[in-house]
Amino acid sequence: MNGTLTIAGLGPGDAALVTPEVSAALADATDVLGYAPYVARVPARAGLRLHPSDNRMELQRAGEALRLAAEGRSVVIVSSGDPGVFAMAAAVFEALEAAPELHDLSIRVLPGVTAMLAAAARAGAPLGHDFCAINLSDNLKPWPLIEKRLRLAAEADFAIAIYNPRSANRPEGFARALDVLREAGCGGRTIIFAHAVTTPGERIETMPLADARPEMAGMATLVIVANSATRRVGRWVYAPRRVS
Amino acid sequence: MNGTLTIAGLGPGDAALVTPEVSAALADATDVLGYAPYVARVPARAGLRLHPSDNRMELQRAGEALRLAAEGRSVVIVSSGDPGVFAMAAAVFEALEAAPELHDLSIRVLPGVTAMLAAAARAGAPLGHDFCAINLSDNLKPWPLIEKRLRLAAEADFAIAIYNPRSANRPEGFARALDVLREAGCGGRTIIFAHAVTTPGERIETMPLADARPEMAGMATLVIVANSATRRVGRWVYAPRRVS
Repeated sequence: MNGTLTIAGLGPGDAALVTPEVSAALADATDVLGYAPYVARVPARAGLRLHPSDNRMELQRAGEALRLAAEGRSVVIVSSGDPGVFAMAAAVFEALEAAPELHDLSIRVLPGVTAMLAAAARAGAPLGHDFCAINLSDNLKPWPLIEKRLRLAAEADFAIAIYNPRSANRPEGFARALDVLREAGCGGRTIIFAHAVTTPGERIETMPLADARPEMAGMATLVIVANSATRRVGRWVYAPRRVS
Repeated sequence: MNGTLTIAGLGPGDAALVTPEVSAALADATDVLGYAPYVARVPARAGLRLHPSDNRMELQRAGEALRLAAEGRSVVIVSSGDPGVFAMAAAVFEALEAAPELHDLSIRVLPGVTAMLAAAARAGAPLGHDFCAINLSDNLKPWPLIEKRLRLAAEADFAIAIYNPRSANRPEGFARALDVLREAGCGGRTIIFAHAVTTPGERIETMPLADARPEMAGMATLVIVANSATRRVGRWVYAPRRVS
């Protein structure tokens, strides 16, 4: 098997945040697979086959990428942000586990700038101290586990990056998450809504969590709940390095 | 004030992981400040002043960067990885808070690939499900808070990225962390030691946490403790997307 499979992260949106390593992999690829809006970010060129697919097709897409690589092609499967954070890398390894004949396939994972880092950079440094990242989608895990993690994260006084806070088919989850965080005593913490970060539609909103409303989060929003020690200076939000 | 201050992340080590955005900022800079080994990664050129400094000089370095920018210079302050994750961004905003006359200074934070993302990419996808990042240095926070966070992270079944697990002047912390995690029932979890990730000295070791020894972590190690559902497939480690 001379084919290769590269699992690459395109960063949050801005082409200036695509690493040279990922750009080189895309320049060498024969096939690029991914969720359609991410494949649309890959420059078309002669000899490159683009395979856009729907959201929630992760496992099928991963299997197709493995199959093409096994046929000898140079395959790149793209995610937004970092491929290892709530993205395609885990799906590829899940598909690989189900295909023992492909375990020797040449696979690489190329990291990228995940959304929480770009959102934090726009806001200041809210992730400058210990933090966690929680995916609010309950497609793949039970809601009580999400609530438990939010409560424990609040108790640990982690800054909390919330991925996928809200989607059309689960509008109520983020409202419940805000309630859980208020009940856990986080109403005085700062919350940051980073919409479409690093794209032309970027918009950053910062307020006390007590003032946050569920509809402030949309499909393209990354939410950061700052830790309790977080401070404001001018338009910036930062987590102090020293805590007692 | 026409000067600018850019707080930039150089990624974990490999030049192919420096974003074009950061490279452009470095190309426009008049002054680059940072911990000496990071400044050494910036290409020298005529007209660029390099200001390397010692570790643990973060606040002084931040103050100097603000002063130079206020004088009208184009200043870049560099961190390894991402500047907002246990790095210089928080120190700059702390220094800014102490200098109200500079609150209108033009400041940008440019994200980078933080070490845990590069380490996870090498191992597979151990951060593919909810996770947290904990800095094990107790220079700036009390050790009991670190232990509390480790216990809560174990209870939440987060994958745990451990930054700065060990340094010459605090050799005992990581040993205690391993004990805390074993007491919290994590002995059967997979642990990943990623040494000098993306550099020529890179080395990745994976084993059950029960077999980990404190001396396996050094100054250039990023540790990931996988969540309890994490699986192995060939040489890869991944956190399944679906948990029950």
